[in-house]
Amino acid sequence: MRARTYSPLPWTLNTSLFRPLHHRTLLSHSSRHLLRLQHPFYLKMSLHDYPNIQTPASCYVDFCLVPVGTGNVSVANEVAEVQRLLKASGLKHTMHSAGTTVEGPWDEVMKVIGQAHAVVHQEGAKRVQTSMRAGTRTDKKQTAEDKVKKVEGMLSKD
Amino acid sequence: MRARTYSPLPWTLNTSLFRPLHHRTLLSHSSRHLLRLQHPFYLKMSLHDYPNIQTPASCYVDFCLVPVGTGNVSVANEVAEVQRLLKASGLKHTMHSAGTTVEGPWDEVMKVIGQAHAVVHQEGAKRVQTSMRAGTRTDKKQTAEDKVKKVEGMLSKD
Amino acid sequence: MRARTYSPLPWTLNTSLFRPLHHRTLLSHSSRHLLRLQHPFYLKMSLHDYPNIQTPASCYVDFCLVPVGTGNVSVANEVAEVQRLLKASGLKHTMHSAGTTVEGPWDEVMKVIGQAHAVVHQEGAKRVQTSMRAGTRTDKKQTAEDKVKKVEGMLSKD
Amino acid sequence: MRARTYSPLPWTLNTSLFRPLHHRTLLSHSSRHLLRLQHPFYLKMSLHDYPNIQTPASCYVDFCLVPVGTGNVSVANEVAEVQRLLKASGLKHTMHSAGTTVEGPWDEVMKVIGQAHAVVHQEGAKRVQTSMRAGTRTDKKQTAEDKVKKVEGMLSKD
Repeated sequence: MRARTYSPLPWTLNTSLFRPLHHRTLLSHSSRHLLRLQHPFYLKMSLHDYPNIQTPASCYVDFCLVPVGTGNVSVANEVAEVQRLLKASGLKHTMHSAGTTVEGPWDEVMKVIGQAHAVVHQEGAKRVQTSMRAGTRTDKKQTAEDKVKKVEGMLSKD
Repeated sequence: MRARTYSPLPWTLNTSLFRPLHHRTLLSHSSRHLLRLQHPFYLKMSLHDYPNIQTPASCYVDFCLVPVGTGNVSVANEVAEVQRLLKASGLKHTMHSAGTTVEGPWDEVMKVIGQAHAVVHQEGAKRVQTSMRAGTRTDKKQTAEDKVKKVEGMLSKD
Repeated sequence: MRARTYSPLPWTLNTSLFRPLHHRTLLSHSSRHLLRLQHPFYLKMSLHDYPNIQTPASCYVDFCLVPVGTGNVSVANEVAEVQRLLKASGLKHTMHSAGTTVEGPWDEVMKVIGQAHAVVHQEGAKRVQTSMRAGTRTDKKQTAEDKVKKVEGMLSKD
Repeated sequence: MRARTYSPLPWTLNTSLFRPLHHRTLLSHSSRHLLRLQHPFYLKMSLHDYPNIQTPASCYVDFCLVPVGTGNVSVANEVAEVQRLLKASGLKHTMHSAGTTVEGPWDEVMKVIGQAHAVVHQEGAKRVQTSMRAGTRTDKKQTAEDKVKKVEGMLSKD
């Protein structure tokens, strides 16, 4: 019963998740279905287990932060201050035409974006609004740079 | 020199930020400019101070998570699993037609969304992509519900 | 050669796309591969054909519009004005805690969101920033409401 | 009565909007308030006028498109196909680590993104989900490139 069909996640799961009864999130859909029929003790993941789930060990988050209510149309000052914060974080980051992509462990990336909100509030904005795209994958490591290069390679053969 | 012009943030700043030389992010643009001219010791915020900036004590984040590469067009299973996770988190959350809004301290809200990625990976998706809108404000507390009611009130007078 | 393996799209394709040589975007990956080997005349879709591709006949777009540089922290006035515009458009729309979902043909939905930018500029904002999530599907019609009900149904069985 | 206090928009408003009674969206907040007191005939913008509002003559839209339900983790094929479509559109566009920024008239930019959905459906995805950030401004023309350069210039003086 301990054999499981899912591929291991690249980050370590809290061991409390590995008790045999919590099949719900640990089995693939098909095996779960099987289990549901065979196993009278099938139980849902308990509410007590959720807090122990670990956040992804690596992710990319692309964000675009907008200060609201400052009376300034230009946001270049705020963007520059956030770039300094990102530099200090040591996380890999790339500024582009419509935001900045940060790469690293989920918690660290999200911490620095929360700090960016704090820094922009300190600059005077009473309200800060951020649009984000977050991506995680378990099949392979791929940097933001790799992704662009792959597509550019495909297009160069056109 | 210790008097500062910015309005206090609703969450506590780490005291290491309050040393007199780090004026960069602590003064308004106009006073900073003044200071730059008058004060020969004007220094930028040091790289060592950035890690101590605290993330917002309250925020709302609206997110829409998409599993990629599952072969399933429907994402209802994954959305339901994430709703269970949110319920277990104890954070205020509202599911709507194009995502779910979560409210609470920045770190807690972002932790649960990172856990949502982990849960959906456990369900079998090798890649998970999330679009988020995060908002913080320092002028007042306002729930997502308040915002909708305010606008509905205005429209009801039309 | 005119038989094609892809499932028909729910909106009508411009007939200029149906000329036999433009297989690139019209065949599934597997049949394309086959074709590539068998057919010496395999050609890419011509640049001249792209302008004739039709936009989706139905979509949902969830958007959250932010006026920048107004000096006002509250955006309720602008949101209310946009709700009036949406009402006038006749498109199905639902306001929620973090945006508004609009449903209808792609071009009509995008037109009304562009008009929302214009209306908010007229209200005085020199800059307007909108975050959007757009979804289209070819397998079935599903309203935003249906999606929420489906998940709520699953959760009610917990 | 024809003098108005708002700054002219960079794109032409349909003349049907300039009839004297439709003050609601045409006057600034302060003058509207004045008018409300002085003018017994103050009327809201009529429902019949909204359809004539023009969409912005220039905008930038940054988008990230995700095919759902394909069984493929990699989306590089789809991204490459969309880049070909963008090239054919003649609109200025820049691919980056987390999306592509397109610049031009609102209607043209949105048309090409709708066509991108159609192209990715043709490639086999039954569901396509796109995250977008759209920006318009009335104070000056600024390309996506200008924005990045401005901030980089500020940071180079650090």
